[in-house]
Amino acid sequence: MERFAIRGNICYSENQKSIRTIEHGYVICEDGKSIGIFEELPEQWKGISCRDYGDRLIIPGLVDLHVHAPQYSFRGLGMDLERIDWLNTHTFPEEEKYQDSGYAKKAYTIFTEDLLRSATTRACVFGTCHKDATLWLMEQMEKAGLAGYVGKVNMDRNSSQGLCEKSAEVSAEDTEAWILASEKFSNVRPILTPRFIPTCSDELMERLSKLQKRYGLPAQSHLSENLSEIEWVRELQPKASCYGDAYRIHGLFGGDCPTIMAHCVYSSEEEIRMMKEQGVFVAHCPESNANLSSGIAPAKRYLEMGIKMGLGTDVAAGSSLSMFRAMAMAIQCSKLRWRLTDQSIKPLTVTEAFYLATKGGGEFFGAVGSLEAGYEFDAVVIDDSKIRSAREVSVRDRLERLIYLDQDAEIEAKYVKGKQITDNRQRKTVGDNNGKYVSGENSAVSE
Amino acid sequence: MERFAIRGNICYSENQKSIRTIEHGYVICEDGKSIGIFEELPEQWKGISCRDYGDRLIIPGLVDLHVHAPQYSFRGLGMDLERIDWLNTHTFPEEEKYQDSGYAKKAYTIFTEDLLRSATTRACVFGTCHKDATLWLMEQMEKAGLAGYVGKVNMDRNSSQGLCEKSAEVSAEDTEAWILASEKFSNVRPILTPRFIPTCSDELMERLSKLQKRYGLPAQSHLSENLSEIEWVRELQPKASCYGDAYRIHGLFGGDCPTIMAHCVYSSEEEIRMMKEQGVFVAHCPESNANLSSGIAPAKRYLEMGIKMGLGTDVAAGSSLSMFRAMAMAIQCSKLRWRLTDQSIKPLTVTEAFYLATKGGGEFFGAVGSLEAGYEFDAVVIDDSKIRSAREVSVRDRLERLIYLDQDAEIEAKYVKGKQITDNRQRKTVGDNNGKYVSGENSAVSE
Repeated sequence: MERFAIRGNICYSENQKSIRTIEHGYVICEDGKSIGIFEELPEQWKGISCRDYGDRLIIPGLVDLHVHAPQYSFRGLGMDLERIDWLNTHTFPEEEKYQDSGYAKKAYTIFTEDLLRSATTRACVFGTCHKDATLWLMEQMEKAGLAGYVGKVNMDRNSSQGLCEKSAEVSAEDTEAWILASEKFSNVRPILTPRFIPTCSDELMERLSKLQKRYGLPAQSHLSENLSEIEWVRELQPKASCYGDAYRIHGLFGGDCPTIMAHCVYSSEEEIRMMKEQGVFVAHCPESNANLSSGIAPAKRYLEMGIKMGLGTDVAAGSSLSMFRAMAMAIQCSKLRWRLTDQSIKPLTVTEAFYLATKGGGEFFGAVGSLEAGYEFDAVVIDDSKIRSAREVSVRDRLERLIYLDQDAEIEAKYVKGKQITDNRQRKTVGDNNGKYVSGENSAVSE
Repeated sequence: MERFAIRGNICYSENQKSIRTIEHGYVICEDGKSIGIFEELPEQWKGISCRDYGDRLIIPGLVDLHVHAPQYSFRGLGMDLERIDWLNTHTFPEEEKYQDSGYAKKAYTIFTEDLLRSATTRACVFGTCHKDATLWLMEQMEKAGLAGYVGKVNMDRNSSQGLCEKSAEVSAEDTEAWILASEKFSNVRPILTPRFIPTCSDELMERLSKLQKRYGLPAQSHLSENLSEIEWVRELQPKASCYGDAYRIHGLFGGDCPTIMAHCVYSSEEEIRMMKEQGVFVAHCPESNANLSSGIAPAKRYLEMGIKMGLGTDVAAGSSLSMFRAMAMAIQCSKLRWRLTDQSIKPLTVTEAFYLATKGGGEFFGAVGSLEAGYEFDAVVIDDSKIRSAREVSVRDRLERLIYLDQDAEIEAKYVKGKQITDNRQRKTVGDNNGKYVSGENSAVSE
């Protein structure tokens, strides 16, 4: 049994309406899970190894519910183009390159290293339709100590020639081979990833549905991102009562199949009801929705209705892997939506955005997104000392400020399931932290 | 006569529709001004001292047309509050502290150091109503080598007790004393700064108008930021035909008085016409307008109408001093405005946003905002090598990517009027760069 503590200024989301902060508090980890947050180290645990992070902030690892790893190569580029031009000029030609394993390895190494450096500990990742490249990505993430779901993308129609899979059968066979090959990973798990209804034939969706039942896998896709796409889905799948129903009729829309749907900017009342009934998670991607001129999803309404939801960076329609930026954009866009579209839906607060980036998205993984007892021990230690101010700033305010100003902060250390995966004080990644803690509750880390 | 060159990947805005890039090109500086951009060093200047920045990007210094220095202490905080609560909870209590010179010095040192570290070379800055603190801010900026306008704020009504100046007469006397005391500065110049119509009596505006004529000063203020404010101004100044006219009738709205008006989110057709006729500069502050739920200014329309315009960070209603973030937000918000409000006004492009942050705002200072011949030599050298990609990225694309991802880039050096004011390779600020250049056109900087 491995047990240790970390100490610092702890901030976590109790619920959508409350952030709790504990100055110089302790979180104790036992076998990869938190056994609690304490103001003082309880008597029974005095003497366990403890790393004291001094005045640093300690927050739960952030959860990115929607990110496209192969698109990372062109983040921040081409966004003056409209969506279809953007897909044809950047996305599809880039994703085609991942049949070349050399290119895939180079690109996914950069993606993984940068994800490791971010405050994200868990992510739900789209790969490409290429089995080998996707396995390689999973291997890199696993080795780095990151956790998450990664999907080999399925697309057998309406795709560029270089990406379109030969047939539904081939797509499903490749998918099954990939699922079996990914059994060797423990923290990075496979997730079924039909790109979206327009690129997946009914036959392919049926085959994926069978794989879903056979292997008990979750699923991720895109939903109601913009109006022309919704119209297109209506034409492609006239049997479906709404876009979401086009997934549901194949059993890939929540219920027994845990599902994440990115965007949901224009979900109809019926679709919203269906998402709630089926427990579908919304991946709210505000920066992407601005960059591609899609619009602004009614995130506050989803929250208030009790729809499950987290945030996604949606790189490369979103420019940055920063989940802090995703939080800031979620708040800012909700204010613009309130002002420009619908004053019946209030803006998101900092407290709600932080909830979404931690517990909200974390729930997709089970007990993830908090440092409270019973949660998996995903923690990020942040040095915000470069964000200077002439006045005293409380821990709560330092967290709030960080959401807007993360570019001036440094990730000092990161833990996933109790294992320390980065240690930037030493400017390197550590594979195993056994014996590296400073012992005793009051020991300070040397500066 | 001082003459030298810098070499690198040069990017500048030719006009609103064109960015020019020159790989490994030269800019030559003579007595603080550019004498041109060259692909090869011309024969006549072979042998002048030249610092070769290798593969770095070299761009014109960025121009922040609207920023509140005293609010920097609470940037990124309190933005869940609505505007009036935000002013009363954060802004006014913070600004009151600047009557304490100790606090002002501490806070303005942080502001100046962080501005120095940013890509901004020129700024139009609001201080507080306190003369001494404002002079101290100017002195700090001057010493740091930054250029810009700084204003002692005027407010003699509708202000918190601690900030409201005793009378129009006292406000004007203090302002004149401040103007005279600021004569000692050369790069940091005074600008008349009535906070906005609601806080300035007619008598105060008349007195400022006289000072404007006596000293030939420019002016800056706020205009049509939100609808309730516009209504308030209508009540306060019934003689004015629009909010802008309430400045114009006192001679503080362009024409002989170069003027910057921040926001202009809800300017009426008449006001827009008046801004154009009077040559008023709009400081477009997209992040602030989102954070305070104000709305989105029709920036593209202003550009197309030939209205003079630049970008402002508007710290602390904007969270960050980063002008790159201001560019990204200008583009993103213009897309949301197009989608949600008015599809007759197209989104801003990267090219237009870069124009606004350089030449657009720079024009307020004269020949500023470019590296072309005749412009003042304000240049920023940027190391973007941490923004990695598996694919080749052109210089033009590196500039575009930087706008979205500046948090991953480093400002390596900064020049204002030909003087090098930062040199981050050496991690320090230099007061004078004479003799520091590496000589000869082909000499590389050691890594």
